[in-house]
Amino acid sequence: MNYNKISKEDLKELHKFIPDDERFITHPTEHWDHDQFKTVRAMPDLVIQPVTNEEVQNVVKYASDHHIPLTPRGNSTGLMGANLTIDGGISLDMVKMNKILEYDPDSLTMTVQAGIRLKDIQEFLADKPFVYMPAPAMHWATIGGNVNTNAGGLKAIKYGVTREHIRELKVVLTNGRLYKFGSKAVKSSSGYSIKDLIIGSEGTLGVVTEVMVRLYPKPKESINAIIPFPDLKHAIKSVPVILASGVVPTTVEFMGREVLNLWEKYANQEFPIKEGNGFIILGLDAFTKSEIQAELDQIIEETKKLDASDAIVLDADSDTAELIWKAREELLLAIQKSTPMMDEVDICVPINKIPIVLDRIEELEKEVGMRIPNFGHAGDGNLHIYLCSDSDSKEEFEKKGQKVISELYKTAKELDGNMSGEHGIGYARKDFYEDFYGEDYTELLRKVKELFDPNYVRKLCH
Amino acid sequence: MNYNKISKEDLKELHKFIPDDERFITHPTEHWDHDQFKTVRAMPDLVIQPVTNEEVQNVVKYASDHHIPLTPRGNSTGLMGANLTIDGGISLDMVKMNKILEYDPDSLTMTVQAGIRLKDIQEFLADKPFVYMPAPAMHWATIGGNVNTNAGGLKAIKYGVTREHIRELKVVLTNGRLYKFGSKAVKSSSGYSIKDLIIGSEGTLGVVTEVMVRLYPKPKESINAIIPFPDLKHAIKSVPVILASGVVPTTVEFMGREVLNLWEKYANQEFPIKEGNGFIILGLDAFTKSEIQAELDQIIEETKKLDASDAIVLDADSDTAELIWKAREELLLAIQKSTPMMDEVDICVPINKIPIVLDRIEELEKEVGMRIPNFGHAGDGNLHIYLCSDSDSKEEFEKKGQKVISELYKTAKELDGNMSGEHGIGYARKDFYEDFYGEDYTELLRKVKELFDPNYVRKLCH
Repeated sequence: MNYNKISKEDLKELHKFIPDDERFITHPTEHWDHDQFKTVRAMPDLVIQPVTNEEVQNVVKYASDHHIPLTPRGNSTGLMGANLTIDGGISLDMVKMNKILEYDPDSLTMTVQAGIRLKDIQEFLADKPFVYMPAPAMHWATIGGNVNTNAGGLKAIKYGVTREHIRELKVVLTNGRLYKFGSKAVKSSSGYSIKDLIIGSEGTLGVVTEVMVRLYPKPKESINAIIPFPDLKHAIKSVPVILASGVVPTTVEFMGREVLNLWEKYANQEFPIKEGNGFIILGLDAFTKSEIQAELDQIIEETKKLDASDAIVLDADSDTAELIWKAREELLLAIQKSTPMMDEVDICVPINKIPIVLDRIEELEKEVGMRIPNFGHAGDGNLHIYLCSDSDSKEEFEKKGQKVISELYKTAKELDGNMSGEHGIGYARKDFYEDFYGEDYTELLRKVKELFDPNYVRKLCH
Repeated sequence: MNYNKISKEDLKELHKFIPDDERFITHPTEHWDHDQFKTVRAMPDLVIQPVTNEEVQNVVKYASDHHIPLTPRGNSTGLMGANLTIDGGISLDMVKMNKILEYDPDSLTMTVQAGIRLKDIQEFLADKPFVYMPAPAMHWATIGGNVNTNAGGLKAIKYGVTREHIRELKVVLTNGRLYKFGSKAVKSSSGYSIKDLIIGSEGTLGVVTEVMVRLYPKPKESINAIIPFPDLKHAIKSVPVILASGVVPTTVEFMGREVLNLWEKYANQEFPIKEGNGFIILGLDAFTKSEIQAELDQIIEETKKLDASDAIVLDADSDTAELIWKAREELLLAIQKSTPMMDEVDICVPINKIPIVLDRIEELEKEVGMRIPNFGHAGDGNLHIYLCSDSDSKEEFEKKGQKVISELYKTAKELDGNMSGEHGIGYARKDFYEDFYGEDYTELLRKVKELFDPNYVRKLCH
């Protein structure tokens, strides 16, 4: 694509659409040149912070007509660089479109502007009988960002991912028109689901401006528990066994002794459970306490067959429970602090294939000479695998990293998995896409892209 | 579109792909000229029953290259005529692609050919710890047909519709190539979800040949119960109230005294509940009996506020329960037998807007002079509304029907609902589509269609 630089004339015209100076930033600071991971960096020429659909429509159409690249952006909690203006141009920063437009409990929906944060939605719903069920860890992410990555989170095994909780989207396409995809009704068999095409598209098909989410009845009772196993493989094998017993947990997370050792160094505290080297943390919810107890009893019975120790309930008001929670929450931080540079792969594989990936990671640690700690969602096969530079130079780290990333993708592909479970492709992983999904498939996606955005106002991630 | 008639040369070439005479039917009988509802009728010139992906690929590519229309077809339980060869050509009858390809409980998936019936999947899973959760009433429908209409069924409120239970599809596009959309992994944030574009596309984007479904742990306990209310509106109002109390039923169906009167005539039996004129039938499932009892107690408490009588549990081994079930199952049959001709609208509206639709139906009965019995899914806002000809001539019935259909669509549109919750648009409703969804939106869908099927081998439904 040949893009035009923003001219003085463009600035003058664009400023007419966004009259407030503080929302029309011609000299962006480094706040806008990176995301959470900083593996991709790019400074926009202009930052625009719209507050209405009309402003978005005007800016997007102008950019498209004048071949100026434009990249929408949320609260920048992404990891793969999808929100960066890698060809310069306009960063369309959505964080000021953060209003709640409607709370409609009788239809079980709530409508918000795309730039609102998950935590604001949660706070609004705190005293209501409903929740927005998806629970990505980054609760300061925007809902628009969550839609664009089809964010997963901790409760996917029981309640599904973002996709299952979106009823309707308002989207500005590059022709400048505002479209409504989906509806307030629960079901549809009424033509192609463009809504589902937008979800997970990383902002490359249009700009999501409004999101109608599904409200879910707040579970009356819930608990979390941790179960120690002899090793991580036993821990992970427990998932299909638990499910076959008829219990559907909200959450099944796994973590091994190795990452907990990192946490002990980081926190300068001892992890309170000494037995076992592999752990699952699981969540259960129900209408009554007795249901949860019966489910937990069943889980204990099943996991005993895999040499597990007794489950420790984490909601008990004890120092031990508090410390285990602290460890779980600080895991990523502990890994991050253990190395000067870091990268991440979040492949998703069939749930019973996680052990094969763990074996491959161990092999790669030796083959490539890199420390690769990991943890993840045992309940849905999504691993978070961290590549640590340790004492390697930037150049060495990048070279080794490319090898590890491409090998892990090869493994995921062989297992009929996906490149990313919840973080997206972004510009950080763009070059691996066609190898993974094949030329035919990638070409089909490119055609879809061109149908929505013929001028490539927003550069594609694959 | 200008299509070619099938020539002798075409027959010779196509027969090479399908060597068995019994699967290459050059003189189709009336078996192939209609669906369940018979509102659209069209006789194909040729019926082909493929058994492999390769056969589908060869036939589809030949048809596309030679501008011969081709329409895929399942077990013909559709109501809107989407599987009929309205321009003649080839009926690609998928019912012989009916094999189970893989049962993989450890990854919670099962892979089947598209022509297998739901009942065959259910029978295969009968002694396993897992189920395929969606529960459309027509259990002799094929899974391929279910994918193509995004079939709903009775359990959408708790477990979602077909879309939420499909992991991977194999689809032959009109270029003759076989594509894999989705994967065995639970989550994906890896490019546009073409799988979700195919689901609900009524066979207009390609031919689905293989379906990998999600297996769900079989609930240990479940019950059904019926609750009588003074009238239908009170019954329907109970749904948001029940949900706000924290209980999520699997099913909430509604039916009024009017349709039950029809059933009494049809069955020549008395409906055993004399009190109340509006009823909901609800399903509950859980891990323990005590959870279900607690949920039911809560529901009774909530519905009492809406003047409901006590819930009657239907699984009890009593004559009353048996008779109520019989009535529920024979409802459609009873309506069908009450009139010489019938048509149906299955709009889906926000769950709290069902009463508005019921009011509009009552008005229309008077305005147009037509009997319009109905029942449906209170839990997801999907109504099944039956237009009865009674003593009207075919011509009169069609004229009145067009009026009622267009008025009901107008109402659904005003309420931010959908034209169809689960039956699709088909050729029976094609002409109403653009009015409902607008020119811009419909044009976008047409462009998507042309990207997948540039020669319109399969005529579009909108």
